[in-house]
Amino acid sequence: MKQSKLFTKTSKTFPKDEVSKNAQLLIRAGFINKEMAGVYSFLPLGLRVLNKISDIVRDEMNKVGGQEVYMTVLQSPEAWQKSGRWSDEVVDNWFKTHLKNGSEVGLGFTHEEALTALLKRFVSSYKDLPFYPYQIQEKFRNETRAKSGIMRGREFFMKDLYSFSRSKKEHDEFYEKIKQSYLNVFTRVGLGDRTYITFASGGTFSKYSHEFQTVTEAGEDIIYIDKEKNIAINQEVYIDEVIKDLGLDKEKMIKAKAVEVGNIFSLGYKFSEALNLTYKDEAGKEELVYMGSYGIGPSRLMGAVAEILSDEKGMVWPESIAPFRVHLISLNKDEEAEKIYDELVGAGIEVLFDDRDVRAGEKFADSDLIGIPYRVVVSEKSLGQGGLEIKKRNQVESEIIAKEKILEKIK
Amino acid sequence: MKQSKLFTKTSKTFPKDEVSKNAQLLIRAGFINKEMAGVYSFLPLGLRVLNKISDIVRDEMNKVGGQEVYMTVLQSPEAWQKSGRWSDEVVDNWFKTHLKNGSEVGLGFTHEEALTALLKRFVSSYKDLPFYPYQIQEKFRNETRAKSGIMRGREFFMKDLYSFSRSKKEHDEFYEKIKQSYLNVFTRVGLGDRTYITFASGGTFSKYSHEFQTVTEAGEDIIYIDKEKNIAINQEVYIDEVIKDLGLDKEKMIKAKAVEVGNIFSLGYKFSEALNLTYKDEAGKEELVYMGSYGIGPSRLMGAVAEILSDEKGMVWPESIAPFRVHLISLNKDEEAEKIYDELVGAGIEVLFDDRDVRAGEKFADSDLIGIPYRVVVSEKSLGQGGLEIKKRNQVESEIIAKEKILEKIK
Repeated sequence: MKQSKLFTKTSKTFPKDEVSKNAQLLIRAGFINKEMAGVYSFLPLGLRVLNKISDIVRDEMNKVGGQEVYMTVLQSPEAWQKSGRWSDEVVDNWFKTHLKNGSEVGLGFTHEEALTALLKRFVSSYKDLPFYPYQIQEKFRNETRAKSGIMRGREFFMKDLYSFSRSKKEHDEFYEKIKQSYLNVFTRVGLGDRTYITFASGGTFSKYSHEFQTVTEAGEDIIYIDKEKNIAINQEVYIDEVIKDLGLDKEKMIKAKAVEVGNIFSLGYKFSEALNLTYKDEAGKEELVYMGSYGIGPSRLMGAVAEILSDEKGMVWPESIAPFRVHLISLNKDEEAEKIYDELVGAGIEVLFDDRDVRAGEKFADSDLIGIPYRVVVSEKSLGQGGLEIKKRNQVESEIIAKEKILEKIK
Repeated sequence: MKQSKLFTKTSKTFPKDEVSKNAQLLIRAGFINKEMAGVYSFLPLGLRVLNKISDIVRDEMNKVGGQEVYMTVLQSPEAWQKSGRWSDEVVDNWFKTHLKNGSEVGLGFTHEEALTALLKRFVSSYKDLPFYPYQIQEKFRNETRAKSGIMRGREFFMKDLYSFSRSKKEHDEFYEKIKQSYLNVFTRVGLGDRTYITFASGGTFSKYSHEFQTVTEAGEDIIYIDKEKNIAINQEVYIDEVIKDLGLDKEKMIKAKAVEVGNIFSLGYKFSEALNLTYKDEAGKEELVYMGSYGIGPSRLMGAVAEILSDEKGMVWPESIAPFRVHLISLNKDEEAEKIYDELVGAGIEVLFDDRDVRAGEKFADSDLIGIPYRVVVSEKSLGQGGLEIKKRNQVESEIIAKEKILEKIK
C-alpha cells in the first residue's frame, strides 16, 4: 500500500485522558482511535494487526477441531435466568437495553448460556459428542474503570471456545490439548518467552483453572513464577497449601506484574445442568454434557504486544502480526522505489511504500513509530553504494544490498 | 470437513414464530439459529457463506481504493447531537444503554458521525483527500417488526463505505465508479440477473439516491422496472415527473416486489458541515469535505439468495458463496470415499464429506437441503458402473465419471 493513500497519519499527541502506554502508542501511530474510555475503533493498520492475531488464534482452534460460529450480541434473558447470571447483582458489568416492545435484552459479555441453549437443538446421543464451537467477535463489559487501553475494553474482541464432552475423562484430555494450543498462540504472536501457564482458582468441578499470564508492568494481576518449571501461581491462590500441592518451592517463586492473555476453565455440569443439556449414552441412559470454556482476547493480546514489544521510538512488531512486512522508503527516488515495490508486491510480500513528499527525518521517525519489521530505503546514497539500505526494526545496524538481492533477503 | 464431526444437523422443523422463507430454510439446514425475532446467530455452514459474501464485497471495495476499518458499536452522543440524529424522535430505532457513570451511549446503526468525527484527526489539506474508509461489521436497529428473517435484522451485518472528496465533481466520479462495483457484487453472488439499479429519493445534495433492488416476492419494497434499459424506479418516487426526467415510458414499466440489497447516497456537506470537517484547498482556503455513503448488507444478501436460489428441496447455492464446493456422499464405501476426499482436499477444494452412518435417503435429502453445488456419490452401484456419480444441485441429470476424472470435472 502506498502511504500517500493511507488516510491515517502519525501524531505526536494522544487524548489527555489516555493513561495507558499501549493506547497512547497505537493512537500516535494511527492504529486505533479512542471513541470513549475503553472503546477503541481499529484503523487500517490496526485492523491488519488484529486480523493477523485472530487468524493465528483461528488456525490453532481449527487444529484442535474447533468449528467457528458467530453468536449474537443481543441476548434474551431466558437462558441467563436459568443459569442465574441475568441479575445485575450477580453480574455487575452487563450492558442492558430494551426492544421496542419493552423486553429487556443484554449485550453478550460471554456466550456459555447462548451456546448451551443452542446445542439442545443438536445433541441427543453420545454419537453427537464431543465438539468444540468457537467464536471470534466483540463482547461487551460495562467496566467501572477502563484505564488499560485495549487491554481492558468495554467493547473488545474475544475468541471463546466451548467444549462439550461426554465425560470428565474426555474433557480432561481435550483440556490438556488446548493448553498446548494456547502456548502455541502466545509463541506465534511473539510473547512466548514471558507468558506463563498460571494456576488460578477453580470451581465446583476443578481444583484450579488455568490462566496464561504475560509479564508486563502494565498488567493488573500479580503472579508468582517458578522460572525453572515454567509455571506460575496467581496471587489469589498463592497460599502454602497450593504451593505445596503443586510441588513448588516458595523460596524460588518470583513475584511479577502480569496481564492475563488467556484463560481455560472446566465448567463441568454448571451450564448443562441449569439448561438441561443432556445426551443418551450407549446404554440409553440420560447423562449431562461436561463442559469447558477457553478464552483469548485478540485485542488485549495486541495491547500486550504494544506494551512489551516497543521501545522509546515506537512499535517493534513481530513479523507474524506486523501490519506489513516491509516499510519501503523512497528519498526522492520514487521511480527506483516503485520498481522495488512492484517486485515485492508481485512476490506476495506486504509492503507499505512511503511515497510521501515529506522530509527524510519525518519518514524515518514515522517508520520507527509504526514499527514494521524490515525498513528498506532507496536513496541517492544507497544507490551510490550499490543498492538498497535495509535495516530490521529490532536491530541497530543497517546494511547495503544489491537491488537483485532484496527478495532473497526479505523472504 | 467430515459431516460426522459437524455439530449442526438438519431438521424438518423451525420455530413457530418464524414466518420468513429464508430463515425457515436456513434454520432447517443448520446454517443459522434464531435467538429472538430479527436476531440470528451464524453456525459453521452459515458463517462460511456469510464470510464468502463479505470477502466478495471486500474485494470490490478494495478495488476502488477502499481502506477497511472497524468502528465501535458503542457510540457516545456528542457527534450525533451535532448532526441532530441522537434524539429518539429523529431516529426511532436506536438501541441505547448506559455506562456505569450514568452516561447514555447508543449502539451504532450506521457510522457517518463516528467516521466524520474521527477524520478530523487526519484531514487538513487538499493533499489528504479523497479517501474511502469502509467497515464490514454488525449494526443494530431497534426494529418494531422483524419478520423478514435475516433480510431485516435487529442485529445484522453491514458493509458501509464512506467517501470523503474535495468537490462535487470528484465525488460524482467516484459515485459512478462504485455503481459498477455494486453491480459486480450482485453478479458475483448470483443475483445479477434480477437486481436493478433503482432511482430513489435523494436529499439536499442530489436529486436521486440509488438503490440496488433484487426482485423477489419476499421483498418489502415495490419497484417499477424498465427491462430494456435495465433500470428501475422505487415506488416512493414513481411519479410522472421522475419518469419523464429519466426518459422512461410508463407503459413499459413493470411493477415488482423487491428487496433493497444495496444503497448509495450523496451526503454532500450534511455531516462535514455539522461536524466541521474541512480542508485547506490549493489557495489555502478552508473548504468543507464532500461526502457520500454506500451500503450493502452481507447478511441481507445471504437472505435474498436463500429466498431466490432455492427450490422445494432446499438451498441451491451459487458456487461463489456455497459453504463447500463438493458434497461427497459415501454409501457404505467409506474407504473409497476417503481417498476421493483426500484427493479433493489436497487439491484445495472445499468438501463436505458425508461419512455418517445413516440411510441413503437421509443423506440425499440433507444434501438437497444444504444445497452444495456438486454432489459426488461413491456407492456399490457407482463403482460398478465405473466410478463416481456426479450431479449438480441445479441440474436433474447425474453422470458417472471415472475416479481419475473427478478433479478435472470439479475444478
